[in-house]
Amino acid sequence: MSDTILFDYWRSSASYRVRIVLNLKRIAYRAVPTDLLTRQQKAPDYVARNPQGLVPMLHIDGQDLTQSLAIIDYLDATRPEPRLIPADPVARAATLARAMVIIADIHPVNNLRMLHYLKNEMGQDQAAVDAWYRHWIAEGFAALELMAPENGLFGCDAPDLTDVCLVPQVANARRFELDMAPYPRLTRIDAALQAIPAFAAAHPERVKPA
Amino acid sequence: MSDTILFDYWRSSASYRVRIVLNLKRIAYRAVPTDLLTRQQKAPDYVARNPQGLVPMLHIDGQDLTQSLAIIDYLDATRPEPRLIPADPVARAATLARAMVIIADIHPVNNLRMLHYLKNEMGQDQAAVDAWYRHWIAEGFAALELMAPENGLFGCDAPDLTDVCLVPQVANARRFELDMAPYPRLTRIDAALQAIPAFAAAHPERVKPA
Repeated sequence: MSDTILFDYWRSSASYRVRIVLNLKRIAYRAVPTDLLTRQQKAPDYVARNPQGLVPMLHIDGQDLTQSLAIIDYLDATRPEPRLIPADPVARAATLARAMVIIADIHPVNNLRMLHYLKNEMGQDQAAVDAWYRHWIAEGFAALELMAPENGLFGCDAPDLTDVCLVPQVANARRFELDMAPYPRLTRIDAALQAIPAFAAAHPERVKPA
Repeated sequence: MSDTILFDYWRSSASYRVRIVLNLKRIAYRAVPTDLLTRQQKAPDYVARNPQGLVPMLHIDGQDLTQSLAIIDYLDATRPEPRLIPADPVARAATLARAMVIIADIHPVNNLRMLHYLKNEMGQDQAAVDAWYRHWIAEGFAALELMAPENGLFGCDAPDLTDVCLVPQVANARRFELDMAPYPRLTRIDAALQAIPAFAAAHPERVKPA
């Protein structure tokens, strides 16, 4: 049994990113399912380790790491094969800027917490909440499509951080029935990535508790 | 005249972070005010350089850099004095995790774009929009208070990335009249940081166009 433990929720796209990276880097780990719907992430013993009460949290090398970007950056520094964020500062800045379109400008806005707030505190109906969800993906994807390469992956021949973030975000887009036709490059890259075993094995349906 | 150009909006807290970092690292730059209220960030020549149509964008070393985290990471790699993100992987992961509470989980949710959407598309009144704004700061600050040191700054003796993100976020909290009493550590750190000239000179009121 591995000492590396991922506190995971099958449908969390931030968890999905970390699962992909653990698979790409062939890091053995044990998953502890943390059910957001029954608020297991707010249990006192979990919050003592992760004050935000969010997933994912990765226990590795004796540390509790939180925030998917911080976790992936740590894994890239300590297990650099394959490299997901380039070392060269200019290439690194470009990769981070693309990934942050998803990490900062799409995903947090569409988090379960926001959707609950829109419904419960603001009295929005499901159709309005779904429209909100699609709107922010569409706005982010429109920019990311312009930043995407004409051929190959974001990481060119091998996946990089943006590719790792793209697949979970496209899965969310499809779940909310966003029309992907305006994003042919993102659609092509997503399809190519899904064919990679490390990505396929991290898919929510593959890790969903029975 | 410097070749380093910051496309800036005085009230953008992501721009405010980058102004603080440029000051801390004593990097000479020219600011180009980019008025979000008149949508200058959506002008075709700007969007050609920054497909997201957001501020800040930093032109430096012949590159157009976007996303405040990517910009700060680049400056830290190429101008490491003073260092804002530790090089040691464990310390680096902890710093990034704290900073991402603000960068990903508070700030994007409260962006001007979201506030406009809540008002114009969802028909929420100003009081409801203000409550939304305060809610997400309060939730993030509650976690960050638990992650804050009992003494000193987030960066201990000298500011780090989280300190750089904290001051603009506290400024926003005050503007929306969030009660800061539940966050004594954040309040103490913010006050200490505001006394540092590099932070003071970056304050929105100091860079607001006449």
